[in-house]
Amino acid sequence: MQTHGYAAHSADTPLAPFTFDRREPGPTDVAIDILFCGVCHSDLHTARGEWGGTLYPCVPGHEIVGRVTAIGSEVSRFAVGQTVGVGCMVDSCGHCPSCDDGEEQYCTGGGFVGTYNGQDKHLGGHTFGGYSAHIVVDQGFVLRVDHDEKDLAAVAPLLCAGITTYSPLRHWKLAPGQKVGVVGLGGLGHMGVKIAAAMGAEVTVFTTSPDKRDAALALGAKDVVVSRDAEAMAAQAGRFDFILNTVAASHSLDPFLNALKRDGTMVLVGVPEEAHPSPSVGGLIFRRRSLAGSLIGGIAETQEMLDFCRDHGITADIETIPMQAIDQAYDRMVRSDVKYRFVIDMQSLRDEVAA
Amino acid sequence: MQTHGYAAHSADTPLAPFTFDRREPGPTDVAIDILFCGVCHSDLHTARGEWGGTLYPCVPGHEIVGRVTAIGSEVSRFAVGQTVGVGCMVDSCGHCPSCDDGEEQYCTGGGFVGTYNGQDKHLGGHTFGGYSAHIVVDQGFVLRVDHDEKDLAAVAPLLCAGITTYSPLRHWKLAPGQKVGVVGLGGLGHMGVKIAAAMGAEVTVFTTSPDKRDAALALGAKDVVVSRDAEAMAAQAGRFDFILNTVAASHSLDPFLNALKRDGTMVLVGVPEEAHPSPSVGGLIFRRRSLAGSLIGGIAETQEMLDFCRDHGITADIETIPMQAIDQAYDRMVRSDVKYRFVIDMQSLRDEVAA
Repeated sequence: MQTHGYAAHSADTPLAPFTFDRREPGPTDVAIDILFCGVCHSDLHTARGEWGGTLYPCVPGHEIVGRVTAIGSEVSRFAVGQTVGVGCMVDSCGHCPSCDDGEEQYCTGGGFVGTYNGQDKHLGGHTFGGYSAHIVVDQGFVLRVDHDEKDLAAVAPLLCAGITTYSPLRHWKLAPGQKVGVVGLGGLGHMGVKIAAAMGAEVTVFTTSPDKRDAALALGAKDVVVSRDAEAMAAQAGRFDFILNTVAASHSLDPFLNALKRDGTMVLVGVPEEAHPSPSVGGLIFRRRSLAGSLIGGIAETQEMLDFCRDHGITADIETIPMQAIDQAYDRMVRSDVKYRFVIDMQSLRDEVAA
Repeated sequence: MQTHGYAAHSADTPLAPFTFDRREPGPTDVAIDILFCGVCHSDLHTARGEWGGTLYPCVPGHEIVGRVTAIGSEVSRFAVGQTVGVGCMVDSCGHCPSCDDGEEQYCTGGGFVGTYNGQDKHLGGHTFGGYSAHIVVDQGFVLRVDHDEKDLAAVAPLLCAGITTYSPLRHWKLAPGQKVGVVGLGGLGHMGVKIAAAMGAEVTVFTTSPDKRDAALALGAKDVVVSRDAEAMAAQAGRFDFILNTVAASHSLDPFLNALKRDGTMVLVGVPEEAHPSPSVGGLIFRRRSLAGSLIGGIAETQEMLDFCRDHGITADIETIPMQAIDQAYDRMVRSDVKYRFVIDMQSLRDEVAA
């Protein structure tokens, strides 16, 4: 069945209307009308070919909230009319140790299938993401969304930015009262602050922008440290149990590692284009600190995150845009001119098709 | 009371006989005649001023086994005539969170007092280490040595090389059957192999020297991988639960990080003079791997290690030397010409003084 979306046809052309096929729902599939799709930095990097490996035409989007329109004969967990979400993955091998552990994001049986730019096992070619009117996804990769109807646009970014920050906080067993640092206050960082604060942590935001202070406090941070201020950074030495570093640009990790207590961990969730300066080995050894990385989260954990956010009244802070404004949105993201996530209202796409 | 030892008087002169004062034992002190002292790479780096900060004259040595000759009035845990050990520390603040947790090596109340080149709280000036006839140490930093009398020279290296490898294996909760890599087969590495194998791990040695294969297997390794062989390294991808990296020379960490399973950790125990190339962030993120550091071990854990080694018949593989041969030993260490640790027989020093 045909659907409509927006695709990049090359690295240096704007996204444009694109018509393509979705598969007919199989026995375990869920067909979804997309209501909203968040705009992740990965979308921009992939559409513009900045990471290499982009398969064109490229329909980005992996922060999807929509409504079930049809289900396969074996689908028991979802019903037509239900509000659901789809995140960064639409499939995985299902039988490697990571999949067995519910950590499909680390699938070693060929890797997970990305919601876009992945290998489409059903139709061949590559997968097309959420910048489109509808999508068909195996029920194992569909999430329940039980937030208020009015919040659905702001729920969409939870499917990537939310789980990317929630998962490491859970995996490293954040406990109430612990001191947590969040480096960077963008799409990921602002979710990290909200979620860590809701988990009971005492959150400090590290930012290069002194003018983000009030915003950080409003999001739930207890303190803000301007990371360009060497003296202020030195004063944080040995204070933090855990630091979530959301900054993908190359920067010195040492002032942040130095801010960790003994046995503290800093987790990176962004891959810089140019390597970070090599971290100080002495800084790791003399306080038994760890530097780690974390990738989104598993499906069960994503459901847990969505439920946690519903229970704690957490959504993303967003600016809604029409599909047609995506390139301007990308340009503003490059300038960090967004608080904190763009979300595409897919009604704009339906209106375009109807016109 | 006067004692005799060997000291470096500057970075570029050989070690030479040196007479200096030890304090009279106070109420909680243990006076020890030194029988054997292991020769650690730190001794060489400090004596030759390679790390900066060396206080001269410098009497190195922090792998000490000796006999108690006197105890203070409040000493209850040791008796005259008992065989004991002293490692890298002779004091710490005693009341910071690390000291409270028995992790004196991470003391944040001014840092632990090194057995040599530390701040001597009793006599002023700096501490003098184990290249000497006797030493006086607070009972809180003295270890019981219950190995066979014939093994005492080979026990000495456990006090630094042993605990440096034992502690991270325990801290990261090595379980029987896990796959453990040990990078480098020198003083630290050969202890890591013995201890990890005794803990029930399946040990692989990574070495740049193909000719170390038989030696590694004899020490308890199940497999040996030549780390200069890119193809052999690639074949190890995703296999290891834990890697203990004992190599202090700058090298790419990525082939080893890549050998870790999801959630695996590589622990560095050596500080390179020049930084390692910056590790790949993607390599951390896409398997949730950790890069960490670890520093010796606490006093209680050092006792646990000594008891573990006694129970498992573990000592270091050593070459005994007289005190007078220390500079030649250093030169051979620089050429990696030692299997695997030099230990000074302090009888040689007593004979010299008597002559």
